[in-house]
Amino acid sequence: MSRVEVCSARIPPCSGRAVELEAGDELVVIDPMGQQVSDLTAFSRDDTAEYLSSGRSIDYASKLWLSTGDTLYSNRSTPMFTILEDTCGRHDFTLTPCSKKMFEIIYGETEGRPGCEGNLAAALAPYGISVDRVPIAFNIFMHVAFDAEGKVAVLPPLSRAGDHIRLRAEMPLIVAMTACSAGQSNNFSYKPIDYRVERLAG
Amino acid sequence: MSRVEVCSARIPPCSGRAVELEAGDELVVIDPMGQQVSDLTAFSRDDTAEYLSSGRSIDYASKLWLSTGDTLYSNRSTPMFTILEDTCGRHDFTLTPCSKKMFEIIYGETEGRPGCEGNLAAALAPYGISVDRVPIAFNIFMHVAFDAEGKVAVLPPLSRAGDHIRLRAEMPLIVAMTACSAGQSNNFSYKPIDYRVERLAG
Repeated sequence: MSRVEVCSARIPPCSGRAVELEAGDELVVIDPMGQQVSDLTAFSRDDTAEYLSSGRSIDYASKLWLSTGDTLYSNRSTPMFTILEDTCGRHDFTLTPCSKKMFEIIYGETEGRPGCEGNLAAALAPYGISVDRVPIAFNIFMHVAFDAEGKVAVLPPLSRAGDHIRLRAEMPLIVAMTACSAGQSNNFSYKPIDYRVERLAG
Repeated sequence: MSRVEVCSARIPPCSGRAVELEAGDELVVIDPMGQQVSDLTAFSRDDTAEYLSSGRSIDYASKLWLSTGDTLYSNRSTPMFTILEDTCGRHDFTLTPCSKKMFEIIYGETEGRPGCEGNLAAALAPYGISVDRVPIAFNIFMHVAFDAEGKVAVLPPLSRAGDHIRLRAEMPLIVAMTACSAGQSNNFSYKPIDYRVERLAG
């Protein structure tokens, strides 16, 4: 059986979208112009109390930076995604989405922008998922490094134009994604993110 | 004004406890015998949808390993704790509490033990907080290291007998703590954790 594209869209700069996946669907997240992060989170459609867990995924993989062949787990230790392809190879799974408060606390903006947290929450609102429940996201293409003392550096993404990651849904999912609003995560050039959903035909 | 001790207790090996704190209370968590981890999590007593967030705390401190003078933030970017003293200096804030599923998936136990996740959930159940809402904990005395490729190593705790951390509550809190059940986090000698709560007199 062949795969068909059931959805294809562009997420404008500094915004977010939600998409529903069936088990077996493949979600391809593309950086069309290069150096642009997309924060991604997910919830089980059967019970939204089950969500994508950074801590479980890092623990079971025994590594911080996940790539092709790795599994992303839920808080219930159930596989949510398998990474089938990854042309970039570096993503973050430790930091919370940028947020109004983060822009105020870290970057001194007097009136912070909604950030990925606000954009994920807006995309998830129709599903009854509130901003309090937006967890640490899988920050696709985000380049975070830690030195020997554990100091965090957020570096320009390593992704080049056209780089993508392909995730297979392992259960029915509500997925929310952004084109990240933090200058550090797009080298201060706020760009879009593309995605498509592929499904087995028939 | 002087401080008085309002609560002092020992958490037996491989178990958990909850305690309620007022704003300004100081919680001292002690490793009485050395090399024993305690997973700690917290929720706002005013609204338990507000919880201790590893991702926010790491982001705002710009470092993985928090110690004296650092602030632990909630998912709403509000300070929950300030670390006033820390005689050990190395704790983890990246991995989820050990759990029945973790013991089965990583360590091949045929019937996993409840672990810190189960023990935290049991301690939090009277507050209506379910196991799904146990987040990445502040893993006191846990020694996690990452190499240049991001590979995770869980090493024996650096804490010696009597080492402690003193946390000031910055809001009214429900706190749950454990004596960790994972052999890697107590050098395969399952020991207790002591704690006490100090409050300004009068």
